[in-house]
This record gives sequence, structure tokens and C-alpha cells, in this order.
Amino acid sequence: MNIIVCGGDGFCGWPTALHISNLGNRVIIVDNLSRRKIDGELSTASLTPIGSIRERIDAWHEVSGKHIEFVDLTLGQDYDKFVSLIANERPDAIVHLAEQRAAPYSMKSPAHKRYTVNNNLNATHDILAALVETGVDAHLVHLGTMGVYGYGTNGMKIPEGYLKVSVETPTGPVEQEILYPANPGSIYHMTKTQDALFFHFYAKNDRLRITDLHQGVVWGTQTQETKLDERLVNRFDYDGDYGTVLNRFLMQSAIGHPLTVHGEGGQTRAFIHIQDTVRCIELAIANPPKAGERVNILNQMTETHRVRDLAKMIADMTDAEVVHLPNPRNEAGENDLHVHNDRVLGMGLQPTTLSKGLMEEVSQIAMKFKDRADTSKIISNSYWTKNRKEAAQK
Amino acid sequence: MNIIVCGGDGFCGWPTALHISNLGNRVIIVDNLSRRKIDGELSTASLTPIGSIRERIDAWHEVSGKHIEFVDLTLGQDYDKFVSLIANERPDAIVHLAEQRAAPYSMKSPAHKRYTVNNNLNATHDILAALVETGVDAHLVHLGTMGVYGYGTNGMKIPEGYLKVSVETPTGPVEQEILYPANPGSIYHMTKTQDALFFHFYAKNDRLRITDLHQGVVWGTQTQETKLDERLVNRFDYDGDYGTVLNRFLMQSAIGHPLTVHGEGGQTRAFIHIQDTVRCIELAIANPPKAGERVNILNQMTETHRVRDLAKMIADMTDAEVVHLPNPRNEAGENDLHVHNDRVLGMGLQPTTLSKGLMEEVSQIAMKFKDRADTSKIISNSYWTKNRKEAAQK
Repeated sequence: MNIIVCGGDGFCGWPTALHISNLGNRVIIVDNLSRRKIDGELSTASLTPIGSIRERIDAWHEVSGKHIEFVDLTLGQDYDKFVSLIANERPDAIVHLAEQRAAPYSMKSPAHKRYTVNNNLNATHDILAALVETGVDAHLVHLGTMGVYGYGTNGMKIPEGYLKVSVETPTGPVEQEILYPANPGSIYHMTKTQDALFFHFYAKNDRLRITDLHQGVVWGTQTQETKLDERLVNRFDYDGDYGTVLNRFLMQSAIGHPLTVHGEGGQTRAFIHIQDTVRCIELAIANPPKAGERVNILNQMTETHRVRDLAKMIADMTDAEVVHLPNPRNEAGENDLHVHNDRVLGMGLQPTTLSKGLMEEVSQIAMKFKDRADTSKIISNSYWTKNRKEAAQK
Repeated sequence: MNIIVCGGDGFCGWPTALHISNLGNRVIIVDNLSRRKIDGELSTASLTPIGSIRERIDAWHEVSGKHIEFVDLTLGQDYDKFVSLIANERPDAIVHLAEQRAAPYSMKSPAHKRYTVNNNLNATHDILAALVETGVDAHLVHLGTMGVYGYGTNGMKIPEGYLKVSVETPTGPVEQEILYPANPGSIYHMTKTQDALFFHFYAKNDRLRITDLHQGVVWGTQTQETKLDERLVNRFDYDGDYGTVLNRFLMQSAIGHPLTVHGEGGQTRAFIHIQDTVRCIELAIANPPKAGERVNILNQMTETHRVRDLAKMIADMTDAEVVHLPNPRNEAGENDLHVHNDRVLGMGLQPTTLSKGLMEEVSQIAMKFKDRADTSKIISNSYWTKNRKEAAQK
């Protein structure tokens, strides 16, 4: 197959591009390298020493004998260039990861809110408009988030995208399935709920074939392909904006920094290992919806944990200390989370479990590269509201 | 009160600005005159001879003794300028009509789709971000559309924004009220459903006070204020993109053009007279939600009619002929529509009924200005899909 990976230089994008390439597909990465530019803005860097996009692609060719193409363009801006690419390449599938993906970054300032809204919404819409304009019947596979569901569900297990409800009508109750009512917890998550409406409309009006993967928090760094050569290493973020909770804990334990839990740590989150992310994307590509069908929504996660339990697990493993900081997020301190993920399991996903993969991460990544850490970047300084900020600074 | 009207030069915005000014409020119009520029793009013009924004504002001062300020800026782009305005003026309310508002225009081409998405979403978000940044506690009153609900509701009466549903959980069914599941019929309508998610998030996270008015198709031209002087006349659109169905029929009958019904005309739509639009906005401003409350949603419409019934009503009144054209929209040919509008009625709206207002429109506007009509602009040439276009051209 001919597959375009938008955002193919990023944390999920790079291992996805390699995995899909390794399976024998032709892969084109579309990226504007914005994630690297944000590292510059925040004076942060991946804990792992990642090569330039050119170095990575050349190394992949050397290691595997396979070519990956790279096109430098900004989705949402360089529309005509993207249309030409689609028209010429006529991809079978487009994997869309070209969005600003950190909730704390999206809440840093008005400029960061505006950037996230403008970038994410116009990027998604450009892909859809280009597919309609060119008439190319590519399957669009989008990386969404579990965060579209919000938290707190009365003990109900979160379904896969659609919710069965009963509505009173003059002729009695009517059962229907609706798009799960969105309840985003940040500007970033909000853009993903708005993406869902783009997808709903284009699937209905233009019969585009679209899969939306509602992904949990990704942990881990390496996949089978990125491990093949040091120059292929994936990025590892540990800073207050882009570092996700579990990877942050791993790195903190490696450098002897206390594990920083926001609030009481009662937040329950869904998790998935990066190896399972790329496998799920492979499975999604292989199982497209039919033209005219509604958007195909899968929950891409494998386990749920409370943040304080994760901290304890790693503290027990590494003797790290646990400290509690004020929670910058405007959210409930405690929530339950039960999630259906039957469909990715049914397609054949064999989950990488925390219990199996954690120690490898600690020893192979966090310990190995700990001297590259800038400890001043660990603590989040993005607050959801003025009140949260003032509470944290007391 | 101190009130900013974003989009105050447009079809709903201008009479709103005059009405609010006439009530004794200080009014500032924010507009980039985009609607006039689109007239240039489409080689169309209002049937009524509207003055420039300066001529209008000066005429209003002459007629009423009241001042309206005008600030030329593009929401979604000139963010810093807008923040300064809000910080200096500290408005009590902001009325937001600064969006591209024609469904056919939004479906003309990829460029029009992209413009509508980019303009509408960034404009709405800029207002919200500016309110949070400045800490100004203005009540935001947004003009939305009945079209967010979609059509076809199993005979159910459409509620005001929120739908009571029952969801099965492990401990039995749980009743909850959710944002009505969105089902937009065009790119334009889609942006309004995405606006609703902006509002949901900012009301929840930042306790902004927001009212969203889900408005029906507006008909009529003049209000009590725009009638006071010829130089205050409101715009009247009859072209295939911006002309709404009823005003198009009125103008067609005046010039002896057949009334053009799309498909069988079985589409049922909700309607409201422009006089009632400005009154509803007045009532919304006077009844803000409290900080921390969910978004306040009202259905701003007064009657529903099937398109073919409207055509017959006007044909009977004026001896016009009725013709049927292929429907450019991707929609069901027939739908019922029952709508709750208890809240605007409860606040004191006295509807202008079709039966009362129609003849005045025919004689005072359509007949009076019929010589300004360009009949080549009447037929819509925006098609929702390639198939619809091909069907129309056969």
C-alpha cells in the first residue's frame, strides 16, 4: 500500500512510519518539524538523542533497505502543495498525527491556545477537503484521544465512540446510538472533539472512509523498529508540557528526582505502550470502514491506572520518593475509568503490559540517558485557570 | 450597558446594533466588512441600496442623536487589537455575529470551505481567549443556528439545546441531560456545532457566561430602527448563496421570476422575522446565565413551514409561477420539524407572523427595489457533492 503519515517525525509518528515501512508499504512522511521547533521555544530536548529527519530516514534505509520519503509542509497552510501530493501519490491510507498534542502546552497562554486551535482544526480540515477535491478514496486514520469522553461515567464502561441512549418521544421511548457526548478537559482535548465533527460531516456528506483512534496516554519509547539502530531512537519527553505522566515518573526515578504527583493522584487514566500504538495503527489501516458508513471509532488503550498507584509501583521498583504538587488541571481529584477496547483486541492486538515493559524502560532509556536531563524543565508551569496558578504559587 | 457587536455591519448585525443603541446602550461595532467584500467576489449586491458603514453610522447619529463606534478588525487574526479593545472598553456584553453565515457559500469550493472553517472557528475562539486573558466578565451572546440539530427527529419536539436521555449503567438506567447530538448539514453548520464545543469548554473551565441562540432562517428586511431613514436600510440578499429561501421567493415574485423550489420542497425549516431577531438578542442580553452555569441555549425561531407551502403561499398572493430545480443539498427530501421556543416567548417575545409581515415585505422592499435585481444571480450554483452537481447539470 501507499501510505502518507502526516506528523511522521513526532513521538507516535516516527515509530508508526518505520513500522508501516517495515511491513512493506511505501511510506511518505508529511511534517513541518513543529515539534522540534517547540523544543526550541521551550528550551527542552528529548531525553534520547534523536537525529534530524534526514539522518533518521537515511539510517532507516541503511538498516532496512527501505525508502521513506519526506515532504516538508504545514497542513492547514500549504493546502495546494498537499493537494498536489495527494493527487500524484493517490495514497491508500493517510495516517493523521499532525496536531499539537500536549494538553499543558495548549493551556500555557492565549497564544498557545490560539496556536493549538488554529493548527489542529485547519490541519484536519485540509486533509478532508483535499480528499474530496482530488476524489482520492484514501482511508483516513486519525489519532484521537480518550480525553474526548471526559471523566466520570457513573461506573459505566466507556463504549467505543458511540453511546446507546433512549430518548422520550410522543410515541414512546426511542433507542438510538449517538456520538458519545464530548466533555473535553483542555484546549487540546477540545480540538479533538471538534475534529470528531469534521469526521462526522465528511463521512456523511462525502462518503469519506475515516477511522478515529481514541488513544490513551502513551508510555514507553522504543518499538521493534526504532531499536534496530541508535540513530532510529524515538523521542522521550519528560518536561512539564510534553512529558506524559508515566514516562515522567520513569525519568524522575532514574535521576533521583522525587516522583511528582499532581494533587492526590486520584486521577485514573488509560494507558498504552508505544509498541501497541504502532500495531493498532497497522490494524486500523487493515480494517477500513466502507464508504457511506459512519466514522469507525476504536478505543486504543490497554490498561487503566490511578496516577498514585503508578507512582507507588515505580517507587517500589526504584526506591524513589513520591511528592504531591498542586494539580494545574481543572478537574475532579478522583475518577473511575472503565473502557471498552474489544475491537483492537478482536483484531489481534497482544498488549504490552506495564508489568512486563516497565523495567526495560527504566534501564534502557531513563538510566542510559539520564545525564541529558535538564531537571529545571520537569515541573509543569501550565495552569488551567488563574485560580489554579495562584493556588500553586502560594 | 456597554455592548460590542462583532459583525455589526451584516444582515443581522446592523439592525441589532441600531436596536441596542436605541435602547440607550453604548454600542461598538467590530467588523472587517467581509460581507461587502464577498459581494465583490460574487459580483452580487444587496437588493436594497445600503450605505457604507460610515454613512450608516452618521445617518444614525443624525436621526437618533446616538453615537455608534466602529472598529475595523478581523477576529481570528487581529487578536492583540481585540484584546486592547476589550481591556479598554470592559463591555458588559459581546454579541457575536462575526461568522461566514451562508451554507451554500461554505460549499462552493475547497477554498470556500477552508475560509469558512478558518474564519468562523478562529473568530469565536479569539473572543473567548480574549475574555479569559483580560478577565473581563462580559456576557457572550452568540448567533447560532437551528441547523446544529440536523433534521428528522422521530416526531420529537426539538428541545432547547440539551436533550434528556437515559443511559444503561451497571446499576440501572441513569437519566442525564446532554448537549443535543450535532448533525450538521453543511460546512457552515458544522462550524456552529464546533462553536458549541468552544462554549462548553470555556463555560466549564473559565466560568464564562455564554448564551447561544439557535436561530431559524431569517426573513424580512427592516426593523423599527432601520425604517427610520432610507440611509439606515438593512441589506436584502436574493442571490443563490446568501439569499435565504423566503426572501428569495419574495424578490422572485416581485420581478416576475418563477419561485425556485429545490427538489420537491418537502424540507421543513424554522423561521423568524428580522425584527424578532433583534428583540431576541435584546432579551438574551437582559437574561444572562450566572458564572459557572452551563451554556444558556435558546431556540430563536417563531414558526416552521415546508418550503413548498411557502412557495404556494407567495404564489397565491402574487400570481407567481412555481418551478422545481434539483436540490443542491445533500439532505432528505422531506422532513418534519417541531421545535420548542418556550424560553424566548417566556421572556416576552411577541412574534411577527408571516401572515402579518409578508405583504409589507413584498410591497416595501421587493417591489420598490426590483429594478436593482440581477436575475443571473438568483440560481444557486453551490452543490454539496459532485453527484448533486452532475445531477443538476443533466
